[in-house]
Amino acid sequence: MHRTYVKVLEDVLDANGTIAAANRDDFDRAGVTVVNLMSAPGAGKTTLLERSLRGLDVRVGVVEGDVASTLDADRIAQLHVSVVQIDTDPSFGGECHLDANMVRSALPSLPLDELDLVLIENVGNLVCPAEFLVGEHHRVMVSSVAEGEDKPLKYPLMFRACELVIVNKIDLLPHLDFDLDRYLHNLDAVHPGVDRLLVSAKTGEGVDAWREWLVRVGRREAVPA
Amino acid sequence: MHRTYVKVLEDVLDANGTIAAANRDDFDRAGVTVVNLMSAPGAGKTTLLERSLRGLDVRVGVVEGDVASTLDADRIAQLHVSVVQIDTDPSFGGECHLDANMVRSALPSLPLDELDLVLIENVGNLVCPAEFLVGEHHRVMVSSVAEGEDKPLKYPLMFRACELVIVNKIDLLPHLDFDLDRYLHNLDAVHPGVDRLLVSAKTGEGVDAWREWLVRVGRREAVPA
Repeated sequence: MHRTYVKVLEDVLDANGTIAAANRDDFDRAGVTVVNLMSAPGAGKTTLLERSLRGLDVRVGVVEGDVASTLDADRIAQLHVSVVQIDTDPSFGGECHLDANMVRSALPSLPLDELDLVLIENVGNLVCPAEFLVGEHHRVMVSSVAEGEDKPLKYPLMFRACELVIVNKIDLLPHLDFDLDRYLHNLDAVHPGVDRLLVSAKTGEGVDAWREWLVRVGRREAVPA
Repeated sequence: MHRTYVKVLEDVLDANGTIAAANRDDFDRAGVTVVNLMSAPGAGKTTLLERSLRGLDVRVGVVEGDVASTLDADRIAQLHVSVVQIDTDPSFGGECHLDANMVRSALPSLPLDELDLVLIENVGNLVCPAEFLVGEHHRVMVSSVAEGEDKPLKYPLMFRACELVIVNKIDLLPHLDFDLDRYLHNLDAVHPGVDRLLVSAKTGEGVDAWREWLVRVGRREAVPA
């Protein structure tokens, strides 16, 4: 059974890659840059988007992936940006990640020709989202300092799969047993030199740098190392 | 492809249930109570175990499930309890949950006849671990207040699958936008009346009640509602 399972999963990943490439073609044809935003549950992806999308100098859409509820989509809709909800629940008690086909099913609901940038908020999970391309140009993860400094070592694939790590909730640092230097050392151990931004989505600290990053990729300008 | 995928996953869950029942038979024959401990990444499962297993009035073993690294197993080993590491990495880039077969493979390394209680620390994930029985008698989840008050609504299966929710990191409450009443209301909305313990694994607050719960289930005494 296990070998069959792994074989089917490999086939699924192959098929997923094909659909992801089709998604990416569609995004490129429309001139839209797509960012896949990943994190553990409760790391602050939605709050970060609430903090950063208002008044951005590029036209933004959001795809919200959730196992259940439209809570996040409802929050994003209040920003008056295009938002599409993907509910992963119908198949098998809830998928723990978005795949290319789910994103593809959302495309007809997105006005791609009127957008520069689409942010895809993945299901909160540090394992499987890193394994499924969805057609994105950039992969960004949000890593909350409340989760502890060992997380890059425990979920290395996720931290390696991203080009930018947003270290969120830094307002909590005085109240945590969290050694930021050790965390950054762990991060460099699994993904040497990966770009990182220290942010508090709550207080707004560091959010401007993230907004500038979004505008640059939304305009398809080179992102400096 | 998608239908094949779902069908294989259903078969996998069936096969998993059979192996889980075999695990449970083995546990029962040895008179060992098994607790499946689940949470999002960084909710504080390992720290809670470090705080609670020392000097417990029952004989304890721990199974540590991780995608990568032996960090948690190393921490638990320092408590001088039996600890077995399950590395989920070999299959397909890392499984996001433990399954019954992985736990079965760990059984020969556990001195079941010398134990009363085995805690299985699952992979940090709020979706798939809830779908895979491993042969446990009790399912407990750790829910960090740093993850936000909406989590029961966003991951209802996990919160429903547990008989006890440990609300951890309550020492952070003064520093968070977290309405505890609203969180408990959300919890009751998805799992009415589920037992809950408010805990800070960091300061030790509430840990005694959790230790008492462990001793009671380790002695196979009834757990009061």
